[in-house]
Amino acid sequence: MPSEFKLTRQVEFHETDMAGIMHFANFFRWMEVCETAFYRSLDLPLISFVPGQIVGWPRVSATCEYRSPLRFNDTVEVRLLVKRVSMRSVTYAFQFRHGDILSAVGEITAVCVAADPKSKTGMVAQPIPESVRAKLQVAPELA
Amino acid sequence: MPSEFKLTRQVEFHETDMAGIMHFANFFRWMEVCETAFYRSLDLPLISFVPGQIVGWPRVSATCEYRSPLRFNDTVEVRLLVKRVSMRSVTYAFQFRHGDILSAVGEITAVCVAADPKSKTGMVAQPIPESVRAKLQVAPELA
Amino acid sequence: MPSEFKLTRQVEFHETDMAGIMHFANFFRWMEVCETAFYRSLDLPLISFVPGQIVGWPRVSATCEYRSPLRFNDTVEVRLLVKRVSMRSVTYAFQFRHGDILSAVGEITAVCVAADPKSKTGMVAQPIPESVRAKLQVAPELA
Amino acid sequence: MPSEFKLTRQVEFHETDMAGIMHFANFFRWMEVCETAFYRSLDLPLISFVPGQIVGWPRVSATCEYRSPLRFNDTVEVRLLVKRVSMRSVTYAFQFRHGDILSAVGEITAVCVAADPKSKTGMVAQPIPESVRAKLQVAPELA
Repeated sequence: MPSEFKLTRQVEFHETDMAGIMHFANFFRWMEVCETAFYRSLDLPLISFVPGQIVGWPRVSATCEYRSPLRFNDTVEVRLLVKRVSMRSVTYAFQFRHGDILSAVGEITAVCVAADPKSKTGMVAQPIPESVRAKLQVAPELA
Repeated sequence: MPSEFKLTRQVEFHETDMAGIMHFANFFRWMEVCETAFYRSLDLPLISFVPGQIVGWPRVSATCEYRSPLRFNDTVEVRLLVKRVSMRSVTYAFQFRHGDILSAVGEITAVCVAADPKSKTGMVAQPIPESVRAKLQVAPELA
Repeated sequence: MPSEFKLTRQVEFHETDMAGIMHFANFFRWMEVCETAFYRSLDLPLISFVPGQIVGWPRVSATCEYRSPLRFNDTVEVRLLVKRVSMRSVTYAFQFRHGDILSAVGEITAVCVAADPKSKTGMVAQPIPESVRAKLQVAPELA
Repeated sequence: MPSEFKLTRQVEFHETDMAGIMHFANFFRWMEVCETAFYRSLDLPLISFVPGQIVGWPRVSATCEYRSPLRFNDTVEVRLLVKRVSMRSVTYAFQFRHGDILSAVGEITAVCVAADPKSKTGMVAQPIPESVRAKLQVAPELA
């Protein structure tokens, strides 16, 4: 079902900080890595280089709540759930589990854009392409 | 007034991604860098190594809303405002400005802990030391 | 044979920079990730927390030569070869391959240390433990 | 004299690892940050976006020797020296000093390229533009 995805990953040495735990900013990188793998599993490009047109998913918001720290070499399951699909944006919910422990939960909202050299930000929001929308479904437990 | 702090910083090359903008996870690193400089300005250690006792501020939650992308070499003002001080935690609000543009706003809540080898997480929450609390004041515009 | 190891990994979005390629500093992180997985495969801890004694492998030197850039989602094979084992240090050679292309070669020399609060650096070099040395063998093609 | 440059910087929390020191890969980021500031001081763009033409400096090689670890909040002087200027490439030497201690020395060789969609790597080496070469001079102590 294209409404959720799971990734397993181990905490790398460079991801720890002097407190001996995974640095809090790295949870956001992991969310994106999970999103990338989700799109790969759907056979969809996360970034499509249509000639003369770049489509991407810049983030509108990102949040993380930290419950229990992760340490070097911990094996972690990252679970992505599609939470909301609107005309131009998608919201994903994430859960980080280490064994039985829920280590963190997070959320990312990304908006679909095309490159637009005339815009001040260099991009303009656009409707999610039908080929993408057709593969995204809100996770039943979040509906 | 120990209720706010400003830091100026330029986007570094390694902080950009292939979309040509500062990667969204790096905003969280900048919030922490601003927090560190705030504590330095107060003459308080962010992490104190009392012999036999480590005190630190692990994050309970972190959020960021992205309004306008930052690019390589952009000069950015990061503003920290103390938003809430409770018995064991502090919440900071952050604003990222590039010229006239509000690029992003964020928030971090950190809890005061001491190392505790007997705890499963290796740390235990504790009241914010009086020497620290005495220097933290909620920013008037957020009160 | 405990003289080499291979890891396969894909370039993550946050590892790219605005030039559209994997940032050059990230190759060093990948070398270390490969070293970690090599030690895990040998059932050896990369960092051992003997009670009251931390043993680690700080780097003495690191080099990388870049031949061909890596891009987002590229599948890369990282190959580690044990190049030299001396009394207190180990040198690893690394090769990064993307398909048929040798993308980069590198080297890391790490020295075995124990924590030593009396030393200015906080660590002191020590002979590689016999249990570790017994499992390290110089790769035939580098002998 | 456009043959050397100095930058002062403090070790940030996210740059440390669980060994309590600056992670070895971050020294390479700092070299590049110093290179960027050097170019800024020369009023030269590190990356120039000539319409229809991107010029950049991908790395050919990077090395670092680590002498003494850096810790959180350490104030470090990074010194760049121009070591070699050839037709298409520049080599910089770097020194990292913390107080009286030489913490690390490094080197980066970068090649001048223009974007070339027809090339397999997407770039092609080109002679260093005269406007750039005119401002680069080998440091006397390395000549």
